[in-house]
Amino acid sequence: MFKGLAAFPLTPLINGRADEKTFVSLIENLAAARVDTIAPLGSTGSYAYLSREQRARITALSIAAAEDIPVITSIGALRLDDILQLADDAQRAGVRGLLLSPLSYQPLSQEEAYRLYERVAHAVSVPLCIYDNPATTGFTFTQELLCAVARLPNIGSIKLSPFSDAAQAAAKIPALRRELPATVTLGTSGDPQAGSALLAGADVFYSVAAGLWPRDIRALTDAALAGDEAQAAALNEKFEPLWELFRRHGSLRVIAAAAELCGRAAAPCLPEPLLSLQGEARAQLQAVLEQQEYH
Amino acid sequence: MFKGLAAFPLTPLINGRADEKTFVSLIENLAAARVDTIAPLGSTGSYAYLSREQRARITALSIAAAEDIPVITSIGALRLDDILQLADDAQRAGVRGLLLSPLSYQPLSQEEAYRLYERVAHAVSVPLCIYDNPATTGFTFTQELLCAVARLPNIGSIKLSPFSDAAQAAAKIPALRRELPATVTLGTSGDPQAGSALLAGADVFYSVAAGLWPRDIRALTDAALAGDEAQAAALNEKFEPLWELFRRHGSLRVIAAAAELCGRAAAPCLPEPLLSLQGEARAQLQAVLEQQEYH
Repeated sequence: MFKGLAAFPLTPLINGRADEKTFVSLIENLAAARVDTIAPLGSTGSYAYLSREQRARITALSIAAAEDIPVITSIGALRLDDILQLADDAQRAGVRGLLLSPLSYQPLSQEEAYRLYERVAHAVSVPLCIYDNPATTGFTFTQELLCAVARLPNIGSIKLSPFSDAAQAAAKIPALRRELPATVTLGTSGDPQAGSALLAGADVFYSVAAGLWPRDIRALTDAALAGDEAQAAALNEKFEPLWELFRRHGSLRVIAAAAELCGRAAAPCLPEPLLSLQGEARAQLQAVLEQQEYH
Repeated sequence: MFKGLAAFPLTPLINGRADEKTFVSLIENLAAARVDTIAPLGSTGSYAYLSREQRARITALSIAAAEDIPVITSIGALRLDDILQLADDAQRAGVRGLLLSPLSYQPLSQEEAYRLYERVAHAVSVPLCIYDNPATTGFTFTQELLCAVARLPNIGSIKLSPFSDAAQAAAKIPALRRELPATVTLGTSGDPQAGSALLAGADVFYSVAAGLWPRDIRALTDAALAGDEAQAAALNEKFEPLWELFRRHGSLRVIAAAAELCGRAAAPCLPEPLLSLQGEARAQLQAVLEQQEYH
């Protein structure tokens, strides 16, 4: 399950409430494209902005629409008791895996983060993915902590923070692999460098773009996992204008604007105060979408 | 109200629920010491970790125990609609001012933060304090944004992020003062540099230590606001061993451990996964508390 392509769809909102019909159509598209895993309620799915009830509802809708494809959801929250409740909710709904980021207000110490994963790892019955995302959590794993957490029971994968470039991916992935249990897969986030990371040995592409365009990202993932550098580079090239916008504005604001511009979500689809791309950047995105046809 | 000494008490928890009796005793102590403002539900009061219902209850308990001293609370939340609800709750309970930090999961853009303050400033009927705390929110105000937000209606104060040293406070406070409306007071957080900041012209000490020891911090505040450098330095000197721990471990973990060690809160009093000081650092704190008597 923590292998191949995991697609992270948006949770489109209308006035703060989930636009359920639109959300289900996004999930149906992912199921039809046969992604390996459907991951609603990642950062792209605005998990941190939704109530426990909203998260339970989105999880249930996802499982109903995902056919036989495994669904995983994030159980991140500031409080440990909330995390454990969210894990219970998700497991009862039938998720096949859980993502957990060290969400922080008071930045967590390494010891606090370790204890958090320890408590959750012992409490859950489906595998857990360590969700490393310092840009949103404010928390940075030391290599030592990451390896210690990965050796806890029930850890299935690590969603690594984005690499700065191909060279960093090529250096870091084999080094991590040597330190980690063989049962823990390594996943790459940060769509712009993901092709390189897969070629360097990552097992999973935790992808934002696949939430909207699973077919092209499926092809890119398959080529990179097969070690076909030329084909992966060609498929990645098509996304370069989009990656450039991801790098400058963050993937969430870009993918939300893309969904709005393509008529796949009603504008504005993000929770306030977040705004999808506006103004000149939105016009640039529109031009990219007209030039490239993503599927 | 946004002048002099504003004390930020802990919200002691037992198994995730507020220990109300203990909390009320902290507020009564602040009222007896005649601080200028009582500020429950700041970062020290764990606002970000509490539900809407818990925050309403803590606010009501504070107002009941504060006698005639004004109470202000933080309305920070990730979603704008939640912020507006929290503001309504707090105003109906009778708070005299509101603190708002640009709490983030997806780091806010400067434009998103401006719009957030604009919406809230126009919606509230009591004055608002801009709560700048990049260590917890992950958001950094540009000087331009800070000044633009300060010119919105209903802005009463800015709780500035901690200064690195006295020289920075002496440079930054007069510069900001020239840019800001005269109706907006400047407050200092970061207890270790607060004495210097008051001597440099800040109007308010937004203090963590005063939540537990309001009398000594009242004396320090009064001396510094009166421009009595020698007296302020002498009073500050007494806290230097505590400030050293604040610098190394963050004020929250230290003040929580101090409350536990002094029998002012039952251990553990912080929301999990947060831990008050443990091990060697806790022993150091204990030694400081035995050596210095804080009031």
